[in-house]
Amino acid sequence: MKELKERILREGKNLGNGILKVDSFVNHQVDPVLMNACGREFARRFANVGATKVLTAEISGIAPALTTALHLSLPVVYARNTKPITMPDAVFLTLAPSHTKGVMTELIVSPEYLAGGERVLIIDDFLASGATIMGLVRLAQTAGATIVGIGALIEKTFEGGRQMLKPLGVPIESLAVITAMEGDTIVFSD
Amino acid sequence: MKELKERILREGKNLGNGILKVDSFVNHQVDPVLMNACGREFARRFANVGATKVLTAEISGIAPALTTALHLSLPVVYARNTKPITMPDAVFLTLAPSHTKGVMTELIVSPEYLAGGERVLIIDDFLASGATIMGLVRLAQTAGATIVGIGALIEKTFEGGRQMLKPLGVPIESLAVITAMEGDTIVFSD
Repeated sequence: MKELKERILREGKNLGNGILKVDSFVNHQVDPVLMNACGREFARRFANVGATKVLTAEISGIAPALTTALHLSLPVVYARNTKPITMPDAVFLTLAPSHTKGVMTELIVSPEYLAGGERVLIIDDFLASGATIMGLVRLAQTAGATIVGIGALIEKTFEGGRQMLKPLGVPIESLAVITAMEGDTIVFSD
Repeated sequence: MKELKERILREGKNLGNGILKVDSFVNHQVDPVLMNACGREFARRFANVGATKVLTAEISGIAPALTTALHLSLPVVYARNTKPITMPDAVFLTLAPSHTKGVMTELIVSPEYLAGGERVLIIDDFLASGATIMGLVRLAQTAGATIVGIGALIEKTFEGGRQMLKPLGVPIESLAVITAMEGDTIVFSD
């Protein structure tokens, strides 16, 4: 997606160790107009997968997942990292390593909002190692739901996430695909 | 706002101790169509305050802040609870008690995205004791920014937040104002 790639080239910063800083429009400050355009594009690409719910992980997945869900007119559920007191005692929980926090984080979803029979579209900000998204896949499968698609704003192919997710046999769509980052140079797949 | 109040009456649950559970459409599962309508309403109410940025706190403030920012065509910044490795060493940080986590949480904003001279509109999910919003006010003031308005989806008047915020002298807008919760009965101000 042209607008997203141009923005990454203009404002993205390669911090080394595979970390791409996009805090000025995705991860800390968010450009809602760009996120809305990304959501519209995801909705177009996943228009025919029959999703009944969008699933993401707090925190950075919320913006693109919300705008995607808006354009698909579907509810969106975000997995929490801590269990708030409003959540029932029995929950779906899994662990995934956090890229930017450097620790294992919990992904928690209440059974109230993820049920058997749901057709789940997973949307997140990054597809890197695929660990967070695989965590969301495990949660959905534990709930008896079916994964029907996976979307990420930004994919870093050199971290191998797509290979890990491929066996799921669902469409995987990334709006900006980065094949290499060296110093100030960010290389896209096309 | 009629749609929001009707939804609270239909799906909100009084968990006691002043906790209103709205996890099915605001806090864990989000209804993006309702959030978009709320964002449009905030944008209408704050159309003339001259805001240059929307500020909120992760996690539950993100959805209403994002849709408000979308309708105002402004960037939105969400204060983080933990400092990710993409953030510089020197940050704006304050502490606020979390209602639903029962602990003090950090609110952290990078100086990169909150500068002197900004005119900040604060949007959050709840206005209860006002502690989180006052934390955001302190962050913005530390940055040299000016607060120009405060909006919350749901206000609980019996927790006194509005009194705490009133001395700021800025418009405070809530889309659903709850004056009492007793058992299954939720009473709105009008």
